[in-house]
Amino acid sequence: MTDYDSPVFAAWRGQAGDDWQAYIDHPFVIGLGDGSLPRDVFLTYLIQDYLFLLHYSKAWAMAVVKGESVEEMSTAATMVDALINAETRLHVAICDREGLTEAELGLAEERPENLAYTRYVMDAGLCGDLLDLLASLAPCVFGYGEIGLNLAGSDDTQPAYREWIDSYAGREYQTLCHTVAELIERACIARLGPEPEKSPRWPALCRRFTVATRLEVAFWGMAFKPV
Amino acid sequence: MTDYDSPVFAAWRGQAGDDWQAYIDHPFVIGLGDGSLPRDVFLTYLIQDYLFLLHYSKAWAMAVVKGESVEEMSTAATMVDALINAETRLHVAICDREGLTEAELGLAEERPENLAYTRYVMDAGLCGDLLDLLASLAPCVFGYGEIGLNLAGSDDTQPAYREWIDSYAGREYQTLCHTVAELIERACIARLGPEPEKSPRWPALCRRFTVATRLEVAFWGMAFKPV
Amino acid sequence: MTDYDSPVFAAWRGQAGDDWQAYIDHPFVIGLGDGSLPRDVFLTYLIQDYLFLLHYSKAWAMAVVKGESVEEMSTAATMVDALINAETRLHVAICDREGLTEAELGLAEERPENLAYTRYVMDAGLCGDLLDLLASLAPCVFGYGEIGLNLAGSDDTQPAYREWIDSYAGREYQTLCHTVAELIERACIARLGPEPEKSPRWPALCRRFTVATRLEVAFWGMAFKPV
Amino acid sequence: MTDYDSPVFAAWRGQAGDDWQAYIDHPFVIGLGDGSLPRDVFLTYLIQDYLFLLHYSKAWAMAVVKGESVEEMSTAATMVDALINAETRLHVAICDREGLTEAELGLAEERPENLAYTRYVMDAGLCGDLLDLLASLAPCVFGYGEIGLNLAGSDDTQPAYREWIDSYAGREYQTLCHTVAELIERACIARLGPEPEKSPRWPALCRRFTVATRLEVAFWGMAFKPV
Repeated sequence: MTDYDSPVFAAWRGQAGDDWQAYIDHPFVIGLGDGSLPRDVFLTYLIQDYLFLLHYSKAWAMAVVKGESVEEMSTAATMVDALINAETRLHVAICDREGLTEAELGLAEERPENLAYTRYVMDAGLCGDLLDLLASLAPCVFGYGEIGLNLAGSDDTQPAYREWIDSYAGREYQTLCHTVAELIERACIARLGPEPEKSPRWPALCRRFTVATRLEVAFWGMAFKPV
Repeated sequence: MTDYDSPVFAAWRGQAGDDWQAYIDHPFVIGLGDGSLPRDVFLTYLIQDYLFLLHYSKAWAMAVVKGESVEEMSTAATMVDALINAETRLHVAICDREGLTEAELGLAEERPENLAYTRYVMDAGLCGDLLDLLASLAPCVFGYGEIGLNLAGSDDTQPAYREWIDSYAGREYQTLCHTVAELIERACIARLGPEPEKSPRWPALCRRFTVATRLEVAFWGMAFKPV
Repeated sequence: MTDYDSPVFAAWRGQAGDDWQAYIDHPFVIGLGDGSLPRDVFLTYLIQDYLFLLHYSKAWAMAVVKGESVEEMSTAATMVDALINAETRLHVAICDREGLTEAELGLAEERPENLAYTRYVMDAGLCGDLLDLLASLAPCVFGYGEIGLNLAGSDDTQPAYREWIDSYAGREYQTLCHTVAELIERACIARLGPEPEKSPRWPALCRRFTVATRLEVAFWGMAFKPV
Repeated sequence: MTDYDSPVFAAWRGQAGDDWQAYIDHPFVIGLGDGSLPRDVFLTYLIQDYLFLLHYSKAWAMAVVKGESVEEMSTAATMVDALINAETRLHVAICDREGLTEAELGLAEERPENLAYTRYVMDAGLCGDLLDLLASLAPCVFGYGEIGLNLAGSDDTQPAYREWIDSYAGREYQTLCHTVAELIERACIARLGPEPEKSPRWPALCRRFTVATRLEVAFWGMAFKPV
């Protein structure tokens, strides 16, 4: 279990406790690893995740808006570009192989669990500052990194969802996790001082991380629900 | 010179130094007191101030958006209501007596100094948190309170602009200053701890207060410029 | 069934079809009318609705931000003030009678269905213009008005939830519905022309109204779920 | 004089009339062409333009937030990345050659004319929709393209500021102008229909374009003012 060299992330994850485990070890994740995840459940997930990515890109664009240094803005801008101009393309390609056209993707109905998650993150950006936003963005970034590493590193992992697993366990995504971790670490220290956990804002930031983690859990669960 | 019982405001004003004095003792203010301010300069100011109030109301609406407790939201909501539903009406009435209809007011060209000020405050609300916004909103609220008290308390003050002076020196406006001061004080302590000036964010908040103060100085100066 | 003299609202409601009926005739609503709604379900609703009101106030504050005339801003400001400074107080008073203190209200866990709804509305305000926001705000305002009138006008309505019913069927709330209807009507015509339904934006606005209506349905359903 | 194949831009520029000419043929621009622009004036401009770029990047990030299709979001994301990760770097490099370090750039005082412009654009994004934002972003994009082409195509142009001229007359920047023109054209048609100029919103969009153009004129003038 890595914390990407970010004590802030380590502390946020630590306090999220069971909620974090429910996310990382969700039946959906187990099914990706042992290959038991039904294909149609994965496809439902993929479609919703495509819609998720569009809104998640907007949330990272809000991080550009709320950045207070060239470094903060630059990292956030790189994330926006990666999400909307690369990761979204990847989803379209995978869906295409599964027989789903991009037009169909765009017409898909956004599910309530999906909507709840991304709008919560956007609202954190509007109502708070960069830290409120980063605490809400963090569970997605790091959780996928941790899940990727867990599954890729397990002897029991089956080939069925290997492409998905490898993309998140791979060097490119793991490097991105490190970049975001450094952004969070620096942004917290710049605003809260060398001991962020002693700031009066700390509980509220922990709360945002935990709520976003729970919304991730609900997102996995959503994929199992029939239309 | 009152600080409305807010050490935070006192510190912000103190560090603004000459900029604050340039605002409080501006020739426009001197002219309001000794009655030497040309009527057409005052009218230009009134018209621009009407447009200012509309955007300033929006900025306080952003404070509702960014509030994190019922108390914070409630105070900000009261400000919005007072500005858009009462103070704006007052301006319309005064302008009407001066021969300017509300329709003419609405058609007036917003000057660059006016635009610069209100958009700076709005942007503080969008890019930052409630404290960034309050530090940008503060110079207008407290400066008018201080100017009102200064002029109303001086033996040399002439009757020409007495109505304007009394409205800001009056109990209602001064109470509002105290309410905003308490909001700022509590909001800072809730986010920065009992010694806000030791927070890493303190210099940036001081900076916002100073920039907004300079934009106030430019606003006074604007009224003297011919169309 | 009233449309509050707003053809735009009538058209939005009409196209929402079954979703609107599912909201207006929800088992929760039936239970309010015939008095069969379990008290603990009502209390769960009240607590969540208190949290809803805080965020819904923020959404109306966004309407002040996005208003383009004094009239638009003034109506929105009146709504913010009514919600945060009056309606919220009313909820606190009712909850107090039921043995719930305001402190307990503030500590209540916001449920996902609640969070989804308000953040969706806020996001409409951030990402779109005033019309996107109003189309998302409308189902709550008018739906409660319609439900209040339906229940108050029925011979079968029992006294158990009469206070709740009367507050929404009452003149004050119904007047507010008319005010919002007029705001929507004028705002649409000002931006889309005399035939709003012929604008290319019309389908997207209908969509926002329908999504918000579905989130209302989920909000009623939430109250029946155990903690 | 090119309109980058955008009738909307052509109409916006046309109605801006003298304001547009005052921007395109400003003494600053003449001085860039005939080489008479004092070096220190150019340097003042460069420093302020570096600060401008940071906020202008944020405004394009707001365009990602307000986009309603993958295409709109993707174009805006590309702009953000180009501005913050490439153009900003270019400014740092040029300033470095002139003896100004990046640290000095970051410490430079943002001038009121600079602040007014970028905050106006940001506010257009917050208060309006994507079209309000694009109409405010447009004068900068297309004006620099037109100025670059004008100066590069003139026989009288001197070598003093050739690097600056070539960068805006060059294929890369001109292609970007075409991309933004297409974004604007499609975004207008998608929201206002095939004849955008017949929409009730048209005058307000023209107004935004004109105000932003005037703020460009003031930006040029700013560079001639002593510190």
